[in-house]
Amino acid sequence: MEAAAAKRPEIISDKDQMRRWSRAMRSQGKTIALIPTMGYLHEGHLSLVREAHKHANLTVVSIYVNPGQFSPSEDLSTYPSDFEGDIHKLMSVPGGVDAVFHPHNLYDYRVDGKNEIGKSGGDEECKNQEGGKGGVVSCVEEKGMGHETWVRVERLEKGLCGKSRPVFFRGVATIVTKLFNIVEPDVAVFGKKDYQQWRIIQRMVRDLDFSIRIVGSDVMRDNDGLAMSSRNVHLSAEAREKALSINRSLLKAQSSAQEGHKSCTMLRDCVVQAITEAGGKVDYAEIVDQESLEAVEEIKNPVVFCVAAWFGKVRLIDNIEINA
Amino acid sequence: MEAAAAKRPEIISDKDQMRRWSRAMRSQGKTIALIPTMGYLHEGHLSLVREAHKHANLTVVSIYVNPGQFSPSEDLSTYPSDFEGDIHKLMSVPGGVDAVFHPHNLYDYRVDGKNEIGKSGGDEECKNQEGGKGGVVSCVEEKGMGHETWVRVERLEKGLCGKSRPVFFRGVATIVTKLFNIVEPDVAVFGKKDYQQWRIIQRMVRDLDFSIRIVGSDVMRDNDGLAMSSRNVHLSAEAREKALSINRSLLKAQSSAQEGHKSCTMLRDCVVQAITEAGGKVDYAEIVDQESLEAVEEIKNPVVFCVAAWFGKVRLIDNIEINA
Repeated sequence: MEAAAAKRPEIISDKDQMRRWSRAMRSQGKTIALIPTMGYLHEGHLSLVREAHKHANLTVVSIYVNPGQFSPSEDLSTYPSDFEGDIHKLMSVPGGVDAVFHPHNLYDYRVDGKNEIGKSGGDEECKNQEGGKGGVVSCVEEKGMGHETWVRVERLEKGLCGKSRPVFFRGVATIVTKLFNIVEPDVAVFGKKDYQQWRIIQRMVRDLDFSIRIVGSDVMRDNDGLAMSSRNVHLSAEAREKALSINRSLLKAQSSAQEGHKSCTMLRDCVVQAITEAGGKVDYAEIVDQESLEAVEEIKNPVVFCVAAWFGKVRLIDNIEINA
Repeated sequence: MEAAAAKRPEIISDKDQMRRWSRAMRSQGKTIALIPTMGYLHEGHLSLVREAHKHANLTVVSIYVNPGQFSPSEDLSTYPSDFEGDIHKLMSVPGGVDAVFHPHNLYDYRVDGKNEIGKSGGDEECKNQEGGKGGVVSCVEEKGMGHETWVRVERLEKGLCGKSRPVFFRGVATIVTKLFNIVEPDVAVFGKKDYQQWRIIQRMVRDLDFSIRIVGSDVMRDNDGLAMSSRNVHLSAEAREKALSINRSLLKAQSSAQEGHKSCTMLRDCVVQAITEAGGKVDYAEIVDQESLEAVEEIKNPVVFCVAAWFGKVRLIDNIEINA
């Protein structure tokens, strides 16, 4: 039997109202944990809520599909959403959450149809611009929103998912900075399923002197072992069965390493072979240092084995830590 | 007769102590204005202190020569400093300042000789790395401090001073972000002598949702008209006399525009000629929109005429707003 439903969270869509809420709570001596999400919540997100309860008095979940981390060719428009369903899921967690921040557009700075600062940065001006250094263009530049400030964690953003998604971590670091400045939390909780993202945010917080503690929360899996993801809904039953090859082969690699097989080439080959044989297309399969995310040849220190693979039109990521 | 000396400010060098100070003050209902400086203060900085008094209960001046905004070939090591003199100058302003934040190194995250987050980012690791996109390398990368997160205002940073100093505004935006996160001010005051910097910080604050009001303060000049700058100390009497050509020619351009001469080519030619004839070497002389900083052909809307020129080994900047 499910626990009694928790309180309905306060739903806040205005950023100034969100900040006032946080400041009012802090002035009462409360600490605040933020969980940034893009909605379409699943048990993985709910585990972050339970984690947040351990670290702060109040929990804020943000639900915002961030155009800044999608390139124009990616799946922004088809990213799934179910706001009312999300609220009910959050209410199913004992203790629930205190506020949900659900803004409409965090990159539109116009006030009453006009831009807040003078006339530059309007709808027309940025269209077809070439974007930042290296030709990086997200859906924010494409839509000509006038936003032009980006946070980059220049070394950590380059490897793993950064190779095939050059705008992704620039967009993540920037939206998280914005959310930190709006919500002003004491703690923020990130899932370690997005391992590179977690390390990037940790590094950004250090480098930019945010007074926020970053908590990493373990990967949540369905009973069959598939790492939970909002994108799993796009998998057919058949594709899902094939996708189990990721976790299974990673578990085998972890066992092999613990039994003394420390050569990363061998371990990687086994995982790539297993996923490929199952019908997946490997984007990357890398064994990297847990901190620097730099590839290693032989496992001597704690590493994480990170994989991204396509099953049909769905790109999945997963990872496993190997503390050899 | 000079006013009686104001109180000696509290000198804080530790960033956690600085944040505790700000939070303690805010919990007493005080508002805080921050003035970021690189020290070697002059009357221009003191005018920012007087401006700050209008906007907040308490004033914090940061004094920190930021290696992140100098390229290895620039004058970081010869940048002048006089900390005790600075404190006395600040005390000469009626009302004075409440705290001076004077950190040692804001890019060194090691704790007890070790890096705070794991082993990456140490002294050795980053040396000779190629730095960010576009080969941009500041003294921070050169010294291998392990810092790798940078804030860029991608469009506004490109023109004017950004052309000859590609690391400059990336470094400014990043250190100001760090100072904002450490001091947590309500207001920050910037001099409009650094016009592009002021506009960049204004845009960054909007784009990253900082809850900080940015105040621009007018250019301060010596009696002879030279815009005040810490670099003026390097000018010989003769070079200083020549450098007056900047302000004089800008004033003439302003008059011409007000008399109906709206062609920017003509106005620019006059200024370049005057400075060159005086013995200066013009880096740029541009008439740009006050908001977008984009060059204009003809003055129709409020513009700012920005100049950078070398006199010997000293690079000076100045500007004048033309509200046609």
